[in-house]
Amino acid sequence: MANHIVTLTTDFGASDHYVGAIKGVILKLNPEATIIDISNSVNSFDILDGALTIAQSYSYYPSDTIHMVIVDPGVGTARRPLLVTTEKHRFIAPDNGVLSLVYEREERLSVRHITADHYFLQPVSQTFHGRDVFAPCAGWLSKGVEVGKFGDEITDFARFAAPKPKPSTPQILKGVVLKADKFGNLITNITAKDLPKMFEATAPTFKLICGQKEVTTRRDAYAQGMNQEVFAILGSHGFLELASNRGSARTLCQADRGTEVGIMVEGVSYNIAPPAAAGS
Amino acid sequence: MANHIVTLTTDFGASDHYVGAIKGVILKLNPEATIIDISNSVNSFDILDGALTIAQSYSYYPSDTIHMVIVDPGVGTARRPLLVTTEKHRFIAPDNGVLSLVYEREERLSVRHITADHYFLQPVSQTFHGRDVFAPCAGWLSKGVEVGKFGDEITDFARFAAPKPKPSTPQILKGVVLKADKFGNLITNITAKDLPKMFEATAPTFKLICGQKEVTTRRDAYAQGMNQEVFAILGSHGFLELASNRGSARTLCQADRGTEVGIMVEGVSYNIAPPAAAGS
Amino acid sequence: MANHIVTLTTDFGASDHYVGAIKGVILKLNPEATIIDISNSVNSFDILDGALTIAQSYSYYPSDTIHMVIVDPGVGTARRPLLVTTEKHRFIAPDNGVLSLVYEREERLSVRHITADHYFLQPVSQTFHGRDVFAPCAGWLSKGVEVGKFGDEITDFARFAAPKPKPSTPQILKGVVLKADKFGNLITNITAKDLPKMFEATAPTFKLICGQKEVTTRRDAYAQGMNQEVFAILGSHGFLELASNRGSARTLCQADRGTEVGIMVEGVSYNIAPPAAAGS
Repeated sequence: MANHIVTLTTDFGASDHYVGAIKGVILKLNPEATIIDISNSVNSFDILDGALTIAQSYSYYPSDTIHMVIVDPGVGTARRPLLVTTEKHRFIAPDNGVLSLVYEREERLSVRHITADHYFLQPVSQTFHGRDVFAPCAGWLSKGVEVGKFGDEITDFARFAAPKPKPSTPQILKGVVLKADKFGNLITNITAKDLPKMFEATAPTFKLICGQKEVTTRRDAYAQGMNQEVFAILGSHGFLELASNRGSARTLCQADRGTEVGIMVEGVSYNIAPPAAAGS
Repeated sequence: MANHIVTLTTDFGASDHYVGAIKGVILKLNPEATIIDISNSVNSFDILDGALTIAQSYSYYPSDTIHMVIVDPGVGTARRPLLVTTEKHRFIAPDNGVLSLVYEREERLSVRHITADHYFLQPVSQTFHGRDVFAPCAGWLSKGVEVGKFGDEITDFARFAAPKPKPSTPQILKGVVLKADKFGNLITNITAKDLPKMFEATAPTFKLICGQKEVTTRRDAYAQGMNQEVFAILGSHGFLELASNRGSARTLCQADRGTEVGIMVEGVSYNIAPPAAAGS
Repeated sequence: MANHIVTLTTDFGASDHYVGAIKGVILKLNPEATIIDISNSVNSFDILDGALTIAQSYSYYPSDTIHMVIVDPGVGTARRPLLVTTEKHRFIAPDNGVLSLVYEREERLSVRHITADHYFLQPVSQTFHGRDVFAPCAGWLSKGVEVGKFGDEITDFARFAAPKPKPSTPQILKGVVLKADKFGNLITNITAKDLPKMFEATAPTFKLICGQKEVTTRRDAYAQGMNQEVFAILGSHGFLELASNRGSARTLCQADRGTEVGIMVEGVSYNIAPPAAAGS
């Protein structure tokens, strides 16, 4: 029996009719589909935010789940609609990089340009392909239409590399806040690969600067934090996170998505290629 | 087999228990029901906003879907609970006009006053008929209870006409912003019927005033807009829309729901009945 | 056949991936589960708000529904994960009092400490037991695993008493605002048990102070209120509520959760134990 789960990760919000129309289109084609909201409150037009949201949730779903990922500021232009299959999952999204972090994590990948416009809702509007293009493809796919019928494989799809931390001096690693979550936790782009010592069982001696705060403590649970203290903690995403016990690190640091983070860890140093000398 | 889809369009919000209680009542009567949120974030008490939300989504759903539309500032007064059937859909709503735009679009319409209070949750509260009246009726309806058992047909149900654009001078058509969506797009009440030239393949020469902005450009995709530019675009709703590329027309125009829109299109003029002369 | 309904009452919000990951974990274990959002917008870290939300909705659900109630500022500490069964319902929650109002309402209660960590997602993170501990237990439970397999019964679980109104003088009963809802209604902790006269068919003569407003009118429906008037009304929760017709009592009173409420009702007086005399 086919898996009929279709998830939604979009920036369409909860206050308009957009998500309601998309769900209707899917259900009219396949009333047996189970539609699950991952989040419809991705920041408007924010492809990185959409990419993070789907990357941190898709792998928890059963095999053959269909993930619609619609953050689509280029709707109505020549950007292509895609159907992507990995070993276990299927994705429907615009070709603007919103699946970049999925591409990064998956070894086997087939990316197709959806061209079979007889599956689309006609006439296709200029401004709402979530309803007219992506939702009907998800509906037909959930009914068992073969992947190959939607279009041919392509290799020149859009992808971006998530920003990686880099040493700025032999002592300092510079990263960035990828996202502030609902609790005000600041999720950085620093992982165990980048800085293994910070992720060991015993925290090293370190100093981290983020916005208005200097952070020198790592905690193993939010509730261990002192009142108003900002501390580092190993997030459930695999990223180093700044947090506060029953408070908002975002507010306390006056930091947000995009804020730079600098960290010095005792006993850790980097080889920095010297800049090319002027005139050489 | 019956269609068990029940949709919710309400102003109950996402942060309280109201929607959770409604869903429980439906599922206790019919655990096989599929409950779909269209939106629970309709502006509080805003019947027009609810009317627009359901009007723009219901037709995408399968036949026999039950749509609960609960924006109900008159709860506990004599306003009647309604069960409305159209050729393909069924609606449960208070009799306050929230289905007006559905009435406008549907030729065949049966409107019943729900009087069969043995279907209600007893005792019925004064303040939450979503839970005590509307949800149990939706639950029983989804189980196959015949429409006629809920009450008799009426013809004096409440309805309002959505505001229509009108010429204010022989050159100027005046409309209004019906809604600002999550992206800040301003959805006006101007349709192809009102101003066919604006909806043709090639945009005419025009000037539109909305809030602080004068708009003279029509775009065919959001991404064609210049930085900070506000432009006109044909929305997926069939309405003329003001938008900005990865920005908020609401902010740029300093306009919102209710803001007047005036538009002059080259070569378009109106016959205006002269005002009755004073003293004649 | 087992009931496969799993509800979510959490503070994880709608804008991050947290709820999406939780739903995936449940569906991977049991693709037949029906997942229902009661609310994921409980105030962050606010155990009383979570307790109120679940207490006001769970009893409307069918027997054997599984309610996940995850407001968990103590995640990663020694606080225990619980599986609670009542005559008709099942609850999965951290042992921090978030089920206190359920305990208050249910006569038969079995509370188990979940220790069967072979049901957990391994490795268990320090910061997201919603995904790693509570969701997989809900998934297995929905598949029919017996309650006893999750761990042994305990009796020393955490619970708090909801704040109760108390007389402050022989004439005045003091209560508190438990919650301001999406409409701005102020829900107090005063029930018919505390002040039967206020809940009778005919309102008594009374004076109530809340924030900046003195309230002397009770209404039987929101729409009976005069413009800008704040009035008392019997809420659908069984609590006395302050409200305004198509307006926000929160704004008009300048009150919010935690604001004190004092009420004097004609003909009602209290016996107050005199304070112990100094020096006796």
